Amino acid sequence: MKKINIGLLGMGNIGTGTYKLLKQNADKITSATGCQVEIVKILDRDPNRDRGIEVPKDMFTSNPEDIFCDESISIVIELLGGIHPAADYIKKALESGKHVVTANKAAVADQLPTLSKAAEESNVQFLYEASVGGGIPVLSAIRGPLEANNYVNVEGIVNGTTNFILTKMTDEGLDYVPVLKVAQEKGFAEADPTADVEGLDAANKLSILIWLLFGQYVKPDQIPTTGITKITKEDIDGATAKDCKIKLLAKAALVNDKLEYSVEPVLVPNSHPLSSVSNEFNAIYLTGDAVGELMFYGKGAGPMPTASAVLGDVIQIIKSEER
Amino acid sequence: MKKINIGLLGMGNIGTGTYKLLKQNADKITSATGCQVEIVKILDRDPNRDRGIEVPKDMFTSNPEDIFCDESISIVIELLGGIHPAADYIKKALESGKHVVTANKAAVADQLPTLSKAAEESNVQFLYEASVGGGIPVLSAIRGPLEANNYVNVEGIVNGTTNFILTKMTDEGLDYVPVLKVAQEKGFAEADPTADVEGLDAANKLSILIWLLFGQYVKPDQIPTTGITKITKEDIDGATAKDCKIKLLAKAALVNDKLEYSVEPVLVPNSHPLSSVSNEFNAIYLTGDAVGELMFYGKGAGPMPTASAVLGDVIQIIKSEER
Repeated sequence: MKKINIGLLGMGNIGTGTYKLLKQNADKITSATGCQVEIVKILDRDPNRDRGIEVPKDMFTSNPEDIFCDESISIVIELLGGIHPAADYIKKALESGKHVVTANKAAVADQLPTLSKAAEESNVQFLYEASVGGGIPVLSAIRGPLEANNYVNVEGIVNGTTNFILTKMTDEGLDYVPVLKVAQEKGFAEADPTADVEGLDAANKLSILIWLLFGQYVKPDQIPTTGITKITKEDIDGATAKDCKIKLLAKAALVNDKLEYSVEPVLVPNSHPLSSVSNEFNAIYLTGDAVGELMFYGKGAGPMPTASAVLGDVIQIIKSEER
Repeated sequence: MKKINIGLLGMGNIGTGTYKLLKQNADKITSATGCQVEIVKILDRDPNRDRGIEVPKDMFTSNPEDIFCDESISIVIELLGGIHPAADYIKKALESGKHVVTANKAAVADQLPTLSKAAEESNVQFLYEASVGGGIPVLSAIRGPLEANNYVNVEGIVNGTTNFILTKMTDEGLDYVPVLKVAQEKGFAEADPTADVEGLDAANKLSILIWLLFGQYVKPDQIPTTGITKITKEDIDGATAKDCKIKLLAKAALVNDKLEYSVEPVLVPNSHPLSSVSNEFNAIYLTGDAVGELMFYGKGAGPMPTASAVLGDVIQIIKSEER
């Protein structure tokens, strides 16, 4: 059986989840690809951290060139997070003729045209399903079975932290600050929650959706973005009185052939499917000119849902290359 | 530019929609595939029917062999509906070395193992995204980006007619019989509604879902199936009192490694995303061991949503063959 070697950049929570899932569901992945798929090298400074799974120490390196120059490696998974040095590593891996899979929305959104061009020039694949909606296979649908459509618009709840906070404010009649504190205690919000609560994370994801849906590149910082930090208990009560929920929506639409986009809190009527997307769940609602309205719903974050999307990309690369 | 010739079996509503969409979104489809994709022969006895679009009369034939024996045709789209002769035509097309795309749940569910084997032996592709959930790209997700998962269970609202009837009974406090009449007048139910209201159509779709999710073939008539004809206004009121909705669910789950399945009306709590799937919309709710819970929502029928899925399959075939 053919062996496919993978180099992994970053062995934090998501990297560890991906490593575990590749072991745990090895039979399923082998049956899908016809290949034995293995992570053989890992870029991470800390081989000794307790990850709850045994990883051979000699797999670890602190030099990314060890992965880019390894001719036995055909696929690189990037899970470092952040723009630098992740985006540079992705580019180098692509230029070294390796397919790249990443979950890193910040790096992807920051350099979509550059990285897409690098992939094209090296005739390799660059996939990032996990970067929007975590485990929800929405990007694969947009670039796959929905391609006969011209896309009309998209509205996404693409940030779990803010959706968790807004849900708790609504269900428990609380104000923003105490709910943020609970979210931080439960691990649904980070110690510095700025990127989530100010809508910056959602803007990264919207930039990626716009690229795939409408073929245009809009940098995240060019997207008009309003977070949820100014939402009050009174706003929530007002929404409830109108039979609505407040949701942070990442929106884009073609209006008279002109693309309009924003990230902002929006009143969503309770009759709309997006209103029932609660807690840390994500959903992407989109319209195509033939298919009409669609919604994709699921877990937008977490090691295992993210690993599902990352390994899904890996499997698709192998299937199309080995066909 | 390379030309891809398609033979179309059946030019009813769905066939006409597919023909129209291929013309209407030709630029999009060419840009996705790098090819010029055209329907060149049509099996239909009636070239003269007004279809609201001009179709050259010399494309029509009443002899399917004209399509199977045409070496210029690489893809056959089957949209005749019903098991016979559709399933035989699909098999002959596959044996003639042609890829086949179909929306025909009855034929697919009746002969999944036979048709899958015929495709494998001829080394061609056999795709049927439109057969479950119409335009919703759920089958592509199951056999694509979700493949790193072992699937745990599925619950689907996969029949628009029954969901429309149950929604109207709930919203308007009416009994089954008058609502069925309205559904028939609005074109959401057929003159003979048996296949829909007795759950047989949902059982066909569940058979297909089970095949793709769990790798087992369960014939539709082996699935315990209860329709909605015995649901009363009192049942609906009882559900409302319990903060639930009655939905006709096609369900399958692995319980202690044993597959359990049924089609039946079920009380769905209003807090569950499936409860907000109203009217003629469909949704498939499934769980994978890594990704967790996912829901796919959209239009389960109609010429344009179905054409979206059919041409989506065509595009995927061309992309993988021309790579």
